Amino acid sequence: MEIEVKFRVDFDEIRKRIESLGASFAREELQEDIYFSIPLPNLLRVRGIANLGKAFLTYKRIEDPGRNEEFDELEVEVSDFDITVEILKRLGFEEDVVVKKRRLVYKRGDVTFELSEVEGLGDFLDIEVLSDDVGYAKRKIWEIAGKLGLGEEDVEPRLYQELIQEKMGQG
Amino acid sequence: MEIEVKFRVDFDEIRKRIESLGASFAREELQEDIYFSIPLPNLLRVRGIANLGKAFLTYKRIEDPGRNEEFDELEVEVSDFDITVEILKRLGFEEDVVVKKRRLVYKRGDVTFELSEVEGLGDFLDIEVLSDDVGYAKRKIWEIAGKLGLGEEDVEPRLYQELIQEKMGQG
Repeated sequence: MEIEVKFRVDFDEIRKRIESLGASFAREELQEDIYFSIPLPNLLRVRGIANLGKAFLTYKRIEDPGRNEEFDELEVEVSDFDITVEILKRLGFEEDVVVKKRRLVYKRGDVTFELSEVEGLGDFLDIEVLSDDVGYAKRKIWEIAGKLGLGEEDVEPRLYQELIQEKMGQG
Repeated sequence: MEIEVKFRVDFDEIRKRIESLGASFAREELQEDIYFSIPLPNLLRVRGIANLGKAFLTYKRIEDPGRNEEFDELEVEVSDFDITVEILKRLGFEEDVVVKKRRLVYKRGDVTFELSEVEGLGDFLDIEVLSDDVGYAKRKIWEIAGKLGLGEEDVEPRLYQELIQEKMGQG
C-alpha cells in the first residue's frame, strides 16, 4: 500500500528544510501525467518523465476516498509514452486531464519526499511511505511533517487531477 | 502495418528449409500470450517471453477480418507481465484465452520468419513483412512461401486465439 499526505508548501523553503533533515536527493523528474476518465475511486494514468526518458502505466484505487491518502497501486514501466496513451484511447478510455510538474525526489529511510512545482497549481510536498501498516505509515509521515513545520492546516486532500479540473471549471 | 501469412507446417522440415534460404537465426522465444475479451476485429494481448525476461502489451486491429493477414499494431514493452495483466483485469477486461508457444525467429532482409510449436495446436510458420505497401508485402511473402514449398492449401487463416477457442469448444 502507498500511503501519502500532500501539503501545500513554499518550494524553496521546504527544500531547505528537507535537506536540513539529512534526506538524500534521489532525482529530478519533469513529469507529464495524462489521467484517463475512469470512475473514482480508481485512477488510470500514463506518466512520462521527459528528462529521464521513462514512462509508466499506473492504476490506483483510492482506499480512503475524500482524504486520498491511501492507495493500492499497480504500476509498470512502459517503453513508449505516446503509444501507451494511444493504446488506452483505442481501448475506449478518454483523456481527462493533464498534470505537468517539476519534481524533486528525496529519501530518508523508508520515507520519500516528492517536492513538486505543478504547472498552474503551485508548490506541493507529498510525503510517502510504502507499507501495509497504515497506522505506522501515518505516524511516520506526521512525525516528519512536524519536523518540517507542516500541520493539518497545510494538508491538500484533493488529487492533482481534481485541482486541475476545478481550475479548468473556474477558467 | 504488419502483414503476415500463417501456414501449417512441419517444424523440423521447415526449419531446415528456412536455414537453407540463408535466413539468419535471431532468437528463441518461450511465449505465453494472454488475450483479453474485446470485440473483433480488435485484439488485446499481454505477451510474456519467459526465457528473455521480457513482456509486451499489444493492441491490434485486424484490417482484413476473416483473412487475418493485415494488422495495425500498437505495442509497448512493459516491465512486468503479471502486473500488466492485473491492471487490465482491474480495468474490466476479462482473460479470454492463453496461447503458449515455443518460437524460433529468423530474419532475411525485411522478411521475418516466426516458426512456432503451439501448445495443443501444432506447428505454424508466420511469414511477416512490416510495410505500408500491402501489395509489396504480400508479393514478398508469397515469393518466400513458394521457395519454402508452401502454398495456398497450407494457409491457416484463423487466429491462434480462435484455434484455441475452437479446441476448447470441442473439448
